[in-house]
Amino acid sequence: MADSSTPFVSDKILDGKAVAAQIRAEVAATVNLLKDKHGKAPGLAVVIVGERKDSQTYVRMKKKACEEVGIASFGADLPETATQQEVLDTVAQLNADPNVHGILVQLPLPKHIDEQLVLAAISVDKDVDGFHPLNMGRLCMKGREPLFVPCTPLGCIELLDRTNTQISGRRAAVIGRSNIVGMPVALLLIKRNATVTLCHSATQNMEQVVREADIVIAAAGQAEMIKGSWIKPGAVVIDVGTNPVDDATKKAGYRLVGDCAFEECKENAAAITPVPGGVGPMTIAMLLKNTVNSAARFFDGTCTHPAAQQQASAAAAALPSWSTLALGTLATATALQAAVKAWGRTPSRGRS
Amino acid sequence: MADSSTPFVSDKILDGKAVAAQIRAEVAATVNLLKDKHGKAPGLAVVIVGERKDSQTYVRMKKKACEEVGIASFGADLPETATQQEVLDTVAQLNADPNVHGILVQLPLPKHIDEQLVLAAISVDKDVDGFHPLNMGRLCMKGREPLFVPCTPLGCIELLDRTNTQISGRRAAVIGRSNIVGMPVALLLIKRNATVTLCHSATQNMEQVVREADIVIAAAGQAEMIKGSWIKPGAVVIDVGTNPVDDATKKAGYRLVGDCAFEECKENAAAITPVPGGVGPMTIAMLLKNTVNSAARFFDGTCTHPAAQQQASAAAAALPSWSTLALGTLATATALQAAVKAWGRTPSRGRS
Repeated sequence: MADSSTPFVSDKILDGKAVAAQIRAEVAATVNLLKDKHGKAPGLAVVIVGERKDSQTYVRMKKKACEEVGIASFGADLPETATQQEVLDTVAQLNADPNVHGILVQLPLPKHIDEQLVLAAISVDKDVDGFHPLNMGRLCMKGREPLFVPCTPLGCIELLDRTNTQISGRRAAVIGRSNIVGMPVALLLIKRNATVTLCHSATQNMEQVVREADIVIAAAGQAEMIKGSWIKPGAVVIDVGTNPVDDATKKAGYRLVGDCAFEECKENAAAITPVPGGVGPMTIAMLLKNTVNSAARFFDGTCTHPAAQQQASAAAAALPSWSTLALGTLATATALQAAVKAWGRTPSRGRS
Repeated sequence: MADSSTPFVSDKILDGKAVAAQIRAEVAATVNLLKDKHGKAPGLAVVIVGERKDSQTYVRMKKKACEEVGIASFGADLPETATQQEVLDTVAQLNADPNVHGILVQLPLPKHIDEQLVLAAISVDKDVDGFHPLNMGRLCMKGREPLFVPCTPLGCIELLDRTNTQISGRRAAVIGRSNIVGMPVALLLIKRNATVTLCHSATQNMEQVVREADIVIAAAGQAEMIKGSWIKPGAVVIDVGTNPVDDATKKAGYRLVGDCAFEECKENAAAITPVPGGVGPMTIAMLLKNTVNSAARFFDGTCTHPAAQQQASAAAAALPSWSTLALGTLATATALQAAVKAWGRTPSRGRS
């Protein structure tokens, strides 16, 4: 499956950073197209509550990534003491803001705030994290497409696609059934015609399940639990785990490892993502892509949000019936929309 | 797993009719409890469009089943020529009707009507078929519970539970990934801690997957595709398929068979559902159960539907602050609600 000609794979290592860089460049190009066409940038709002150092770092990284590709970023920094109503009010304001096309609430929230309630309050048209149950429902249903797919699972599939890994008809083992990674990546693989086995904490003889798999997605959050002998020769391994383990040789006193014993697994695998530098960079790249896709829907009036509908009716009102020039402009807009849509999907997604 | 002491299994044949009869008796008892407490019966509305003979038979069966357990049934029979708007208006009326706690639109609809649009128009609080994407989304998410689960998948799980079949930790093969059966039954098995492999038309070497499974759910709609040699000795086989095959010895010229070659599969299986008389009777039983659970939520004001909210505020307004008697009544209502809830769930649904 992977040989010297496989893109982004060298010495069996699948370079997530390089794939992410390519996606970010594509996002930047699309942002420019959208700005030219609509005179407006896509906008992403990140809501953070409290002073957790790790959360603040993640939010800073996301804002920086937005800047680099030309996405306008909006911040809402609430203190640890913010009430649930204040958080909900912030989300409601951002839902209504026509400059915001994606809303992300940085998790975890302080314990006194109901996470489910806050996530469900995000407009389904701006749910760039894809965590709304309506988006998850569409993801698992045949004949329906979610507006957004969670970023990390989307990044896993993108890594498979950009390395020309065949998915259809192959067996895949997904380890972990979280709402954020395991379950949605399993659903995506099913939509792409893989035969998927979902493993979790109650799975017995996990080794046997993994050994049957042509594609392994490890998202258990258990340091190096998957051993080299479990990997079927020639399998592609995507390691979502990021687990700190003590390491006295490091300044921080620890280093990060994945869910797979990397060196061992690499022996049998055709390709494997490193930790860090594999799936990690993909998550932010896919967040940017989700935001741009969302903005395109708003600009074209092709989502149900009132702001998009206003946009659509304003465009219609601005179009004199005799103006072929305006029609030309609309036609170009439609073409751009089609391009964004095509780019938002990977090819050959069969359904049956 | 199944021996002479296994309930509802005799000569390896899992008697779905008998399980369904038990559930209907339980539903009837709960209907009586609810009537005593609230002076009102649960109500189910069945919408049918057109004159398909098979659909009319199904609808008649559902109405008869309602009568038998004391559920009020409401019909809306629209002609084949009904417009989409007329169907949507009918659904809207039923959504608003406080006597209706469940709405079922008999499928298939005539070709000129958008099935997705009609199904999505059903109030999520009355979606007894469980086909609303929001209910599907909650079904696939950890830490969330759908208001309704589709009836046939729920019936499959109930068959496993009532025969004391262990689900947690066991391997399950689900064949077929339809929105109505395959996907939701796979999600239910995952919630119950099985290790599930979902097979479909693109699966290669399905025989191997099935051979590993302790539980086989066949929902492919392919007559006798699953052979006896595929079944692991001691596996429990639930056959959802109902396929007509030519049979000159029958008056109708055909007979119904499942997705499993019954006699062959029975050899290896510990228990297997027959076709007919296995899963079929369970679907209507679970529809009745879903309707009663929904009515209980309406009567208690524990769902978000405006009618339920009015019920809840009326109950609160009717409660004088000094009345211990009224408090007692409310406490009884709460106990009933808890009983209905407990009964609506099967025991030991671990999460991890």
